[in-house]
Amino acid sequence: MPIARRGLVLVLSSPSGAGKTTIARGLLASEPDLSLSVSATTRAPRAGEVDGRDYRFVSRETFAHMVEQDAFLEHAEVHGNRYGTMRSAVESVLARGADVLLDIDWQGANQVRRAMDGDVASVFVLPPSLPELERRLFARAADSEGAIRRRLSNALGEMDHWDEYDYVVVNENAEAALQQVRTILHAERLRRRRRVGLRDFVRQLKG
Amino acid sequence: MPIARRGLVLVLSSPSGAGKTTIARGLLASEPDLSLSVSATTRAPRAGEVDGRDYRFVSRETFAHMVEQDAFLEHAEVHGNRYGTMRSAVESVLARGADVLLDIDWQGANQVRRAMDGDVASVFVLPPSLPELERRLFARAADSEGAIRRRLSNALGEMDHWDEYDYVVVNENAEAALQQVRTILHAERLRRRRRVGLRDFVRQLKG
Repeated sequence: MPIARRGLVLVLSSPSGAGKTTIARGLLASEPDLSLSVSATTRAPRAGEVDGRDYRFVSRETFAHMVEQDAFLEHAEVHGNRYGTMRSAVESVLARGADVLLDIDWQGANQVRRAMDGDVASVFVLPPSLPELERRLFARAADSEGAIRRRLSNALGEMDHWDEYDYVVVNENAEAALQQVRTILHAERLRRRRRVGLRDFVRQLKG
Repeated sequence: MPIARRGLVLVLSSPSGAGKTTIARGLLASEPDLSLSVSATTRAPRAGEVDGRDYRFVSRETFAHMVEQDAFLEHAEVHGNRYGTMRSAVESVLARGADVLLDIDWQGANQVRRAMDGDVASVFVLPPSLPELERRLFARAADSEGAIRRRLSNALGEMDHWDEYDYVVVNENAEAALQQVRTILHAERLRRRRRVGLRDFVRQLKG
């Protein structure tokens, strides 16, 4: 009989170009008990997006009210739209013993740590070298060189937050980095304090 | 270039019969960067045992002096002989970035946690069921039934200390349990605070 566990919040951050998104996709594809939570946003739905599945689409007034009610683990404004991770959405996943992946920046990570009283596992992904980071940023997009330079400069600033995280993974190779994050996830699931069914298990064991 | 790391102390405990020794052997055989530290003992060397390799053999006077000097992370008396894990032996392994496995009971684990200011990763191994624990204890030795009963009763008492550990592994199957402990070891190696070379790595990264 499996031992009941409380799910965990896995926070994954990195400077842009370090390969976090590839790792997040790989994790979600290979870990059935790990999912994203549906975020709330003030931006308009795009074609094909379904309310409650892709996002919870809300007005600016509703969003502001939710912030006041402490309904978010973290929230941010990006290009004039507000996005937030809903506490209720995350809690319902954790309560059924599954894990939530939060793909957020260091500012969001700080908010989540505070909101969860530190009960998260946080991983920071670093690129293996500066030339490789430049290569990835240039390879990625049809952006102007100026835009890429700005992205690189931002990435270098974001990098300074590596020492706020529980774990650091250097992404030299996408498959190896994915495996390292998976190892962290699997070990964190074995933490005693998350295995809430252990007390009953030991009681039964002792007869 | 590998990032310099500080080694970790992996504490493995379990009630007798839960399979801890098999797991410890499997780990040591498969993890070149993990080793036992040489303990000090007051018992006489047996045939073939080499001082400084198998144990550091010391007099009772020397042992008592070492205790006074706080030379041990933990020590205990077993069948009239004293055994102790030497702080210096463990520290020298950690300093070269390798890990130390301590196969000790919950009392030793408590001493080590205090001596290391909590900087250990501790794993408690549980048997899958009471009948299986009995089967393993009976299968093991040519001991009298009375001796086995005493061992079982001790095991049930030791089991109550599961909730002092960072991780709990249920040993349903030796290979799976070994893999779980290995996962914990690999994840703990990725902890930011143990990767002491990260600060230099990020400095170089930023150019």
